[in-house]
Amino acid sequence: MKDFYPSRVNPEPSIMERKDPVLYGSQSDGPLNNTELDFYKQNGYIFLEKMFTDDEVDVLRKELDQTMNDHKSVERPDVVREQGSDEIRSIFDVHKNTEFFQKLSSHERLVNIARQLLGDDVYINQSRINFKPGFKGKEFYWHSDFETWHVEDGMPRMRAVSCSIILTDNYEYNGPLMLIPGSQNYYVQCASGTPDSHFEQSLKKQEFGTPDNESLKWLVDQSGGRIDRATGPAGSVLFFESNIMHGSSGNISPFPRSNVFFVFNSIQNKLEKPFSDLTPRPEFLANRENIKPIQPKPFDLTKKLIQS
Amino acid sequence: MKDFYPSRVNPEPSIMERKDPVLYGSQSDGPLNNTELDFYKQNGYIFLEKMFTDDEVDVLRKELDQTMNDHKSVERPDVVREQGSDEIRSIFDVHKNTEFFQKLSSHERLVNIARQLLGDDVYINQSRINFKPGFKGKEFYWHSDFETWHVEDGMPRMRAVSCSIILTDNYEYNGPLMLIPGSQNYYVQCASGTPDSHFEQSLKKQEFGTPDNESLKWLVDQSGGRIDRATGPAGSVLFFESNIMHGSSGNISPFPRSNVFFVFNSIQNKLEKPFSDLTPRPEFLANRENIKPIQPKPFDLTKKLIQS
Repeated sequence: MKDFYPSRVNPEPSIMERKDPVLYGSQSDGPLNNTELDFYKQNGYIFLEKMFTDDEVDVLRKELDQTMNDHKSVERPDVVREQGSDEIRSIFDVHKNTEFFQKLSSHERLVNIARQLLGDDVYINQSRINFKPGFKGKEFYWHSDFETWHVEDGMPRMRAVSCSIILTDNYEYNGPLMLIPGSQNYYVQCASGTPDSHFEQSLKKQEFGTPDNESLKWLVDQSGGRIDRATGPAGSVLFFESNIMHGSSGNISPFPRSNVFFVFNSIQNKLEKPFSDLTPRPEFLANRENIKPIQPKPFDLTKKLIQS
Repeated sequence: MKDFYPSRVNPEPSIMERKDPVLYGSQSDGPLNNTELDFYKQNGYIFLEKMFTDDEVDVLRKELDQTMNDHKSVERPDVVREQGSDEIRSIFDVHKNTEFFQKLSSHERLVNIARQLLGDDVYINQSRINFKPGFKGKEFYWHSDFETWHVEDGMPRMRAVSCSIILTDNYEYNGPLMLIPGSQNYYVQCASGTPDSHFEQSLKKQEFGTPDNESLKWLVDQSGGRIDRATGPAGSVLFFESNIMHGSSGNISPFPRSNVFFVFNSIQNKLEKPFSDLTPRPEFLANRENIKPIQPKPFDLTKKLIQS
């Protein structure tokens, strides 16, 4: 299959223009209006304040805690622990392994937006729940998700969108996601050299698949110096395009952060072989099995609250 | 001498109330008005926007660069380099070693404010210039300067103020200083155990003189959840009280940060023996020699610009 987005091939990094649309659908295709769609197209993301009510957030938080608790003694690669501690930080594949998050991943409120942005039926390429404590939240350096998904997982085109449901207030000072608006229009071809099983490696001085300083500077310049932050109250939802350059600072504040994270991919954009000679990453990071379009369904979260 | 602020003595951390005034002077003593003084007293800092004009900032930046350049091949502990690189990050004692920064440290615009806040003649306890590049700016964890100055340097009372002249724009996203307003009123007594030559040690998992999570949470609670950031344009000056709890996140943005930093101390608050059994830190970190009150003088920075 043709590689439209080669990366980690040449010794020197470079920037190429995106070859795919950012926005595939239109106002008539779903819940977002033209203003919102234009914002997404131009900036590569949209932050929807309080898509979930406080009661719903309460349920979501309890389910997250419960799921973390249920996995306390589970030793599997999809259950990720703090280094040097037993505390669980992330659980992957929750849309497959837990009934609640399976239902949430089909929630029409989310799926209809993903379908509208991607102009197609969608499926979940990756899911996870994250709990990041305060005081020692780690930095996440700039990256395009698509670059990894393309090179390491074999995602052919830019037709995926990440959806982060924010379960804690995001402030300027507790390490919110930072995004370079407009960067979704450019593809940073990283310098060559990817060791196999890269995802398992601990952080090294020279990271592979890391954008170079010059390209990052260029991307920030084209945005007029803007670096946006996804700040807002719990219950807000951030949709961000697969290729937008994003990262986050560490979090030394006492305020923890937790979220639910789904990657929606177009059903026409299923994973192929990696666009590299790497071994494909495991299923929990990049779904390949039993791919079926999601049927968006209503899901009354607060019903759950009354039961509990 | 009586130790009014013991720390690193007991195995468990605790919080005690401040025993000294925050603000020593009044409106009639100097350039700040009552509103500004009230803000400082309540919040423990004051951020004065654009105290230096763009032309003056230009001169300050050139002098900073020049000084860094002049010290390229100087191997002294007061010239601090990036780990694993030759690039200079900080130079200490610039108020002694360079004519320009000596004059700047006596600049009436700064000294008169320090004198007003401390209600006394002042001298410089520590000075430095800092250049922090973008992309890899390191996190600086929460700390009270006074705790270190007291335990390691022998500063008796809380009657000092730090002055940071900001030479690059400070944004929310390039690691601005974060301050917990009101925390200057409380002293976090850190848990015991300080190895000698602490200042020379690289960052360890268990840091000594580091405030504990519970105390930090408590301080943020008493501020009503507020964590303020010193953001604003180049040329602004931040004065912050010696005991305010502050820190900063890393800086992954492309925007570097540089500043000039003076610590003004009351002439009645000169350093004694450390309030611990530690060997006093070197002179460049904690001035003890030839202490004399500063005579505030006018200093026309832009004259310099015309000459150059």
